[in-house]
Amino acid sequence: MAKATLVSLAESLGVSRQTISNVINAPHRVKPETRLRVEHAIAESGYRPSAAARQLRTRRSMNLGIRLMPVVDGINGSILDRFLHALTEAAQEDSYRLTLFSAATDDDEVRQYEELLNVSDLDGFVLTGTHHGDQRTAWLLENEIPFASFGRPWSDTEDPFSSLHPWVDVDGGAGTQQATGLLLDQGHTAIGFIGWPAGSGAGDDRRDGWRRALQAAGVFADQLDVAVNDGVPAGARAAESLIAAGATAVVCASDSLALGALSAFRSQHRAPATPNVIGFDDTPVAAAVGLSSIAQPIEEAARDIIRVLTHTLSGDADAGRPDKHLLLPPTLAQRVPHPLAGNGWLG
Amino acid sequence: MAKATLVSLAESLGVSRQTISNVINAPHRVKPETRLRVEHAIAESGYRPSAAARQLRTRRSMNLGIRLMPVVDGINGSILDRFLHALTEAAQEDSYRLTLFSAATDDDEVRQYEELLNVSDLDGFVLTGTHHGDQRTAWLLENEIPFASFGRPWSDTEDPFSSLHPWVDVDGGAGTQQATGLLLDQGHTAIGFIGWPAGSGAGDDRRDGWRRALQAAGVFADQLDVAVNDGVPAGARAAESLIAAGATAVVCASDSLALGALSAFRSQHRAPATPNVIGFDDTPVAAAVGLSSIAQPIEEAARDIIRVLTHTLSGDADAGRPDKHLLLPPTLAQRVPHPLAGNGWLG
Repeated sequence: MAKATLVSLAESLGVSRQTISNVINAPHRVKPETRLRVEHAIAESGYRPSAAARQLRTRRSMNLGIRLMPVVDGINGSILDRFLHALTEAAQEDSYRLTLFSAATDDDEVRQYEELLNVSDLDGFVLTGTHHGDQRTAWLLENEIPFASFGRPWSDTEDPFSSLHPWVDVDGGAGTQQATGLLLDQGHTAIGFIGWPAGSGAGDDRRDGWRRALQAAGVFADQLDVAVNDGVPAGARAAESLIAAGATAVVCASDSLALGALSAFRSQHRAPATPNVIGFDDTPVAAAVGLSSIAQPIEEAARDIIRVLTHTLSGDADAGRPDKHLLLPPTLAQRVPHPLAGNGWLG
Repeated sequence: MAKATLVSLAESLGVSRQTISNVINAPHRVKPETRLRVEHAIAESGYRPSAAARQLRTRRSMNLGIRLMPVVDGINGSILDRFLHALTEAAQEDSYRLTLFSAATDDDEVRQYEELLNVSDLDGFVLTGTHHGDQRTAWLLENEIPFASFGRPWSDTEDPFSSLHPWVDVDGGAGTQQATGLLLDQGHTAIGFIGWPAGSGAGDDRRDGWRRALQAAGVFADQLDVAVNDGVPAGARAAESLIAAGATAVVCASDSLALGALSAFRSQHRAPATPNVIGFDDTPVAAAVGLSSIAQPIEEAARDIIRVLTHTLSGDADAGRPDKHLLLPPTLAQRVPHPLAGNGWLG
């Protein structure tokens, strides 16, 4: 006999799925004779409402909320989408599901937390894009709602490794430091940085890595640091100003900026044989045009986040507890920009 | 006084959120004196568990399930991610949330339906990637589970417009027909097609559009039709064989295939001034390299899917009912491939 399911049980008994669910979850709602009949059939059939039973036992919804960040451009968006895929799979392996919501602002995200806790009684949240003065983490901590963030807490005064909440992050500064080191090794000394306006934790961290590498080599030049909002055209304009200031290579805080920078170098006929533009996030676009880029171990980060969060939720003793603050190292994907002719795209 | 929330209520009463939730959803679980105290506080505070109340009244979970399709490559994946964003936003506007799950196969997807219906009692599902002999739609129809699909039912015998379930799709064949027409207008006559092996509904439909345009122009040639699995290298190899067979232009079933084809034309130094390769899905990679591509109105499709599905769920009378089978027209994004120098990337 095929394994009994809620659907097959309902069919064979001539009752609705809701009735069977009620017998398991809210038996008072079901007429006693129906209840006995269903309970008997459940026992006979070998039907195992395992996750449902676990949910009842633990009083947990087995659902985690995550805000789907707005699409800024399709280039950088791919990194968050890979994260979401890996997070869904890791959560599911541990019997958790993700509930998606959208929010226009952090304020709105907090309102959504309240709404979701009211309506669905979610067990916890996964946050992305932590930043200085993040009101979302403050609210969740204050209300004692379990959560973990992809992104460390950014504070000028507190050590992120003594944070009250679990987080997983990638050491972006180590990535830009390594990328800058590669360009130094290739003989560049006037190496610019194109990043975002100061204040975003991750952006500042990436800028710091570039600065550290240049300072260690004794070639740091303040005027080769440009801050713009993300995007391909902004990256091109920033690179044009850096080229005018004498830069022969650039490290960028994103692949969108880097794609613009590569275009600017090419339009100035200054593209050397070795890669002189390095992006961040190793997106499909970087692979398609042969752009070197710093790669985040995004699938590993997602699995770690689910691990530290579900550990918190399961309330296990501290023995065997995973480290709840994890800073993962990035890697550098090195490529050569594709010439007009040739099939270098096929990497 | 600030609007009362479940969290503020719990705090002022010194009880857990779960207790308040139980008073509303499962009062039998709560000690009578606590229950009275909480009910009194709810009445006093003006706390409105509106969505929760709606959920109770309608016996609906206000949650829709959707499988997050596996990432095949980051190029084509972007279209499904845009779809997911738009779907989340449209669902939320109507007080629905999306519950994500992953599945390796269609079989596994059906098992996940059962699990999700057992545990979370989801109200319905959104399906993507419908195909010939789709067991998922068959199972959902048989078990009378509400759903809508992004993708029409593919059948050789039945009219999709008389389908029992709501669906929204994009007229891919009209897109490839238009793209082929553009290449004909530019003077090409040996126009190849690079698509997927026969059997995928959407892929066959795209091939049919190309064939229709060539047949209408009296220049159809069977040997210029190549079927391969998706991917950039496969697209390049297919284009090489088409070039050897005399093709001067190609229409492709995806941007991954088209990127490979563009590379093959370039490596053969046969890239003319006008675009001779047209892809499908207008991905960020297509924009980055200047590839013309057929664009799906993906946000509109997502909104329509939520509209037809929630209409089914709300059980409104047929009066004012939206058309539940919608075939949307695509558009053609025309671009010129970027030369080595120049800032054409900044489109």
